[in-house]
Amino acid sequence: MTLTEQNNLKKHRVIIYGAGGYGGVGLVENLLTHPTVEISALVSREGAGSAYSHLYPHLKGQMDLVVEHAESFEPKGRGDLVFFSTPDGVGQTLAKKYLDYGIKVIDFSGDFRFDNNETYRAYSAWQQGEADHADASLLNESIYGMVELNRDKIKETRVVGNPGCMAVSCLLALLPLCKERLIKYDSIVCDVKTGISGAGKKPKPGFHFPAASENAYPYKIAKHQHIYEIEKNLTDAADTEVQIQFTPHVIPLVRGIISTNYCKLNKDVTEEDVEMAFEKLYKNDPFVTYHMNDGTLDLSRVKGSNRCDLGVFFDRRTHSLTVTSLIDNLQKGQSGNAVQVMNLMLGCDETAGLLNQTRYP
Amino acid sequence: MTLTEQNNLKKHRVIIYGAGGYGGVGLVENLLTHPTVEISALVSREGAGSAYSHLYPHLKGQMDLVVEHAESFEPKGRGDLVFFSTPDGVGQTLAKKYLDYGIKVIDFSGDFRFDNNETYRAYSAWQQGEADHADASLLNESIYGMVELNRDKIKETRVVGNPGCMAVSCLLALLPLCKERLIKYDSIVCDVKTGISGAGKKPKPGFHFPAASENAYPYKIAKHQHIYEIEKNLTDAADTEVQIQFTPHVIPLVRGIISTNYCKLNKDVTEEDVEMAFEKLYKNDPFVTYHMNDGTLDLSRVKGSNRCDLGVFFDRRTHSLTVTSLIDNLQKGQSGNAVQVMNLMLGCDETAGLLNQTRYP
Amino acid sequence: MTLTEQNNLKKHRVIIYGAGGYGGVGLVENLLTHPTVEISALVSREGAGSAYSHLYPHLKGQMDLVVEHAESFEPKGRGDLVFFSTPDGVGQTLAKKYLDYGIKVIDFSGDFRFDNNETYRAYSAWQQGEADHADASLLNESIYGMVELNRDKIKETRVVGNPGCMAVSCLLALLPLCKERLIKYDSIVCDVKTGISGAGKKPKPGFHFPAASENAYPYKIAKHQHIYEIEKNLTDAADTEVQIQFTPHVIPLVRGIISTNYCKLNKDVTEEDVEMAFEKLYKNDPFVTYHMNDGTLDLSRVKGSNRCDLGVFFDRRTHSLTVTSLIDNLQKGQSGNAVQVMNLMLGCDETAGLLNQTRYP
Amino acid sequence: MTLTEQNNLKKHRVIIYGAGGYGGVGLVENLLTHPTVEISALVSREGAGSAYSHLYPHLKGQMDLVVEHAESFEPKGRGDLVFFSTPDGVGQTLAKKYLDYGIKVIDFSGDFRFDNNETYRAYSAWQQGEADHADASLLNESIYGMVELNRDKIKETRVVGNPGCMAVSCLLALLPLCKERLIKYDSIVCDVKTGISGAGKKPKPGFHFPAASENAYPYKIAKHQHIYEIEKNLTDAADTEVQIQFTPHVIPLVRGIISTNYCKLNKDVTEEDVEMAFEKLYKNDPFVTYHMNDGTLDLSRVKGSNRCDLGVFFDRRTHSLTVTSLIDNLQKGQSGNAVQVMNLMLGCDETAGLLNQTRYP
Repeated sequence: MTLTEQNNLKKHRVIIYGAGGYGGVGLVENLLTHPTVEISALVSREGAGSAYSHLYPHLKGQMDLVVEHAESFEPKGRGDLVFFSTPDGVGQTLAKKYLDYGIKVIDFSGDFRFDNNETYRAYSAWQQGEADHADASLLNESIYGMVELNRDKIKETRVVGNPGCMAVSCLLALLPLCKERLIKYDSIVCDVKTGISGAGKKPKPGFHFPAASENAYPYKIAKHQHIYEIEKNLTDAADTEVQIQFTPHVIPLVRGIISTNYCKLNKDVTEEDVEMAFEKLYKNDPFVTYHMNDGTLDLSRVKGSNRCDLGVFFDRRTHSLTVTSLIDNLQKGQSGNAVQVMNLMLGCDETAGLLNQTRYP
Repeated sequence: MTLTEQNNLKKHRVIIYGAGGYGGVGLVENLLTHPTVEISALVSREGAGSAYSHLYPHLKGQMDLVVEHAESFEPKGRGDLVFFSTPDGVGQTLAKKYLDYGIKVIDFSGDFRFDNNETYRAYSAWQQGEADHADASLLNESIYGMVELNRDKIKETRVVGNPGCMAVSCLLALLPLCKERLIKYDSIVCDVKTGISGAGKKPKPGFHFPAASENAYPYKIAKHQHIYEIEKNLTDAADTEVQIQFTPHVIPLVRGIISTNYCKLNKDVTEEDVEMAFEKLYKNDPFVTYHMNDGTLDLSRVKGSNRCDLGVFFDRRTHSLTVTSLIDNLQKGQSGNAVQVMNLMLGCDETAGLLNQTRYP
Repeated sequence: MTLTEQNNLKKHRVIIYGAGGYGGVGLVENLLTHPTVEISALVSREGAGSAYSHLYPHLKGQMDLVVEHAESFEPKGRGDLVFFSTPDGVGQTLAKKYLDYGIKVIDFSGDFRFDNNETYRAYSAWQQGEADHADASLLNESIYGMVELNRDKIKETRVVGNPGCMAVSCLLALLPLCKERLIKYDSIVCDVKTGISGAGKKPKPGFHFPAASENAYPYKIAKHQHIYEIEKNLTDAADTEVQIQFTPHVIPLVRGIISTNYCKLNKDVTEEDVEMAFEKLYKNDPFVTYHMNDGTLDLSRVKGSNRCDLGVFFDRRTHSLTVTSLIDNLQKGQSGNAVQVMNLMLGCDETAGLLNQTRYP
Repeated sequence: MTLTEQNNLKKHRVIIYGAGGYGGVGLVENLLTHPTVEISALVSREGAGSAYSHLYPHLKGQMDLVVEHAESFEPKGRGDLVFFSTPDGVGQTLAKKYLDYGIKVIDFSGDFRFDNNETYRAYSAWQQGEADHADASLLNESIYGMVELNRDKIKETRVVGNPGCMAVSCLLALLPLCKERLIKYDSIVCDVKTGISGAGKKPKPGFHFPAASENAYPYKIAKHQHIYEIEKNLTDAADTEVQIQFTPHVIPLVRGIISTNYCKLNKDVTEEDVEMAFEKLYKNDPFVTYHMNDGTLDLSRVKGSNRCDLGVFFDRRTHSLTVTSLIDNLQKGQSGNAVQVMNLMLGCDETAGLLNQTRYP
């Protein structure tokens, strides 16, 4: 195939709904370098009617598509796949329409992370208050977008719920241990430190620079909705009920999540058993790397990229394990993972569009 | 006088109107250590009805007065002096009432920085749109609260307009040169870098941590209202018209202002002439220090304190001068200076309440 | 007593050995406001021979004592108490000499945190490699400087080992629970996030601004020497062996420590039992406050001050407890606590010198 | 040409000498995405003998070449072009050898920014002390690597001196005005604010996180060596002597430079004259954009990219001009510009390798 032929190939066309926020700009930055996918529509309330680069001037000359208004956007024929980079409640009301037009769906909220109305209700009780799903029949086919867990199912589905950023971080650390049944399921502690971009683009008192700089704080202790998402998936992996202690903390950082995951090992479990569990799940993974007892992992490894670096520390003295998990909350924790999911759903190379860095904000 | 006697002495009582913002908490932090002044009322919309420490928990046990609501606050008999830590337009409508009750006034906005309706109109044209002063007769007696310029007048007046933070920084650098007529008045450039607390406590998109961290930008180039305030005072000092080029910049810092002030020297002006001009104005000043050709001045010298450090650089090669001026925008640039002014108005020691550090935010 | 009389009173005189570092300047800032203690000597290699304010220009006019050289300093008759703000190994070789001159000792390192050579050897194995104490007989009388644990003993002793900053944070959270035997001793996890000033004043690659800003990382996982210090004191409090999982993290913050402490509760332990344990230990404490289920605690509450704020979260669902502990690592975690200890040793009011803020760096 | 054919094409091969520093990693990050250039050797003292990704783990899997030791590196046959990302004095002693092997040279220091021994001596007097160039004959052919000034000459030469980061920023703002003779040449003030990565990778007290965070300071006032570099090029452009006032400031930012450039306009010069001067120089420029009177320019526009955004403010009131210039100091200010220069020297597309973001540190 010649270069010209390649360029003439019909690229996959994707719609970004909710393009104005950090999730949207992350998708744009990733997709700019994608060889076989192009953005066909940017939809947003913010910035509607102007070039996207008006909203994000660093993209001037690279993404000057005019933003279309969410209220009036008509998806028919506009793309092969849509990203709903929107809060809980939006995607579940729109998905059916898009699917009927043959447009696959990747949703960034909790709307499609659960497999039936019952588990969705349980999740919503943690999040916005217990409620039924607006279109529960779709939950039968929707897949939880953790690639490392559901790669094959994602290739076959039309609807994916992209995981929560803190859930990604903790699950990548704990899934191998639960799958291989190496740990005491009532001993898990997940301590999460997140950068402020995780809270989105909207200014709030706690994120005002003078309040947030030189400050740090825990929040939603034992109450965060990602607890349910993590427990649900660990429980499925272990095939027995798992409950965790979980505390998220805001630290004065734009991007990045460190989660530090603690657990007690079952009797007689060895360091080799632990290593094998991680090797089994991540051996050929393009983005997840684990490091046995390597104490040098910092966020600069993953900033801007879709990587997850895991540090696995076996402590003989207390027969326990500490697994640190480092991701960029806006990449592996959000839009990078979503592009990886999209690649699987559209039949592209899994790493396409994900080898360069994103950087806003 | 015994300690008990001292404690029984009737202290001066002051009202802080607009106590909820950064200006308010700065006043509180300064006054907590004041030996002869006490806070008699905290007035604010934000936090009204609860202890002040509910708004500012770091002051728990130190300032638990209940905040009174601005709408219903009745000043009669409540204090000897009021600070209006409020935006332009508030103090000018309230001052008369307070003065009639015998309560002296220090206003944090531009409302009392000018001496007649004409200059106020000129200022307001830069600020919110040209307008008459609500109570122009008070401008006859109000004094511009730059202590280094008006120490004696401040002692005698009932009304002071506390200077703008960037104006303080630039004027302290340039006043000695204009007063002694050492420089070319059309050559002045003031380049200001300010921390974000200068913009107040209210969250805005440009001050959202992910937007402001690792970022910096100029704003209101050649248009900032402090230009008029600076030119007015330099013109008065030089007794001839002075115009400046002035650019403020936001840098990712909570507190602090560096202004870098440039000018050409008149023919034959020597380094000694320059030093003498600074010596004359600041010889016995308790807070302003100048350093000839000392390149080590940084903001950590003044953070939290009412000090101003000036670095005066004489450049033989270009026969020009660079004067760097470092202050804490919330102290010498706002509440610290206001307490210094208060000390003069109430007959207290000029440095009382100003020897410790403030630290919020 | 009149003011003049008070001023003529012979104040206690203290020596700061190791005055050049962050510990030293913290002591100076605290003691500047102390009513009955004065600094009689500042001893340091860095800055020796010049005024202290040459090293710390923000103290110009407030602390201009000439720094004396550590090599040649002769303590006899120079003070009533010395602070050794020095690394492990220094205080243990110097203490005897000072004590023989009647100078009480507060040491900032691990040198006097343990009560006999055996426990010191165990500690040193975690720290610099197992070794005997240079003057083990002093360990019989030295007291661990955690005031909340040893207030009365500190009043009587001549030698105190000031606790490690992360140990202070975790112990204040966990001691009430161990003392009252409410928790499962094998379930404790301490996750610590510390500001960079905790690593001292010396530049290192990991603390270079471009490397440390927008970055964060765990270190010394399961290996930090404070593990032993914490376990030793929890074990003593519980009167049975306690082992913890402990991970320190560096976050991009100058000052402050958040530790998040997790544990499982014993069967039938109620929220009231937990509250009573905290009430019992901290009821009348001047600096430690606990908050039941209050999710709003952030580091801005404690920055610059000697306070510790504890957030105690009882989770019915998992029958577990999460205790967040917020301190300023340079204050309650270091020099503030040392001044509190000094107050007890010298018979001053426990809070003297500790009501204002310190602020460098 | 098919994709396979394209991949089989012999790519240009380049050597990075001084690969361990920020300049080196910037080059690597840019060149990773270059379609027709590959890195053939990485030379450094730091990290020699190990994979480059050992030094920069975020590049694991993308750049795992083993670093070669500077002492023993033999360039013959190793590449078509070398980048000397080294301090003053290194490139001038090595260049001849590389050129003799047919390897073109781009040097990051001041070694090849001047066109004869006399101007080099003048520059070195500002920098490290007046000295002769080690190989002055090469200065006859070396070109100053400001593309916007010397695009055609760069295409023809074998040796380029890559400009200083602050010089790039100020020159891009002022060159159009000097070339078109619109301004008073004795009125120029350049006020520069730079991120800390500009000082390189080596930790120093002023760049220690606790010292640099929440701090800012001017340095080398009227003494910085970039003054000479800027004046030399403005003088050449204006064809008459130009002297500037210039102050660099360190602000708490990893990457980025804002320079604010002030000057008085000649009589009768209009806004249109000014716009035309910028239009003339930058009309077709791929990276430099100017904005007339647009006050919204911030560093986030240029972070990580090779762009320069100029804000041109015409002030009728003072008949003066303020030109703000925003670049990433490590890109347009260093390695990005060097890759642009390389593209011209090797005959590649001028923007190749420069359309994605770099991000370390």
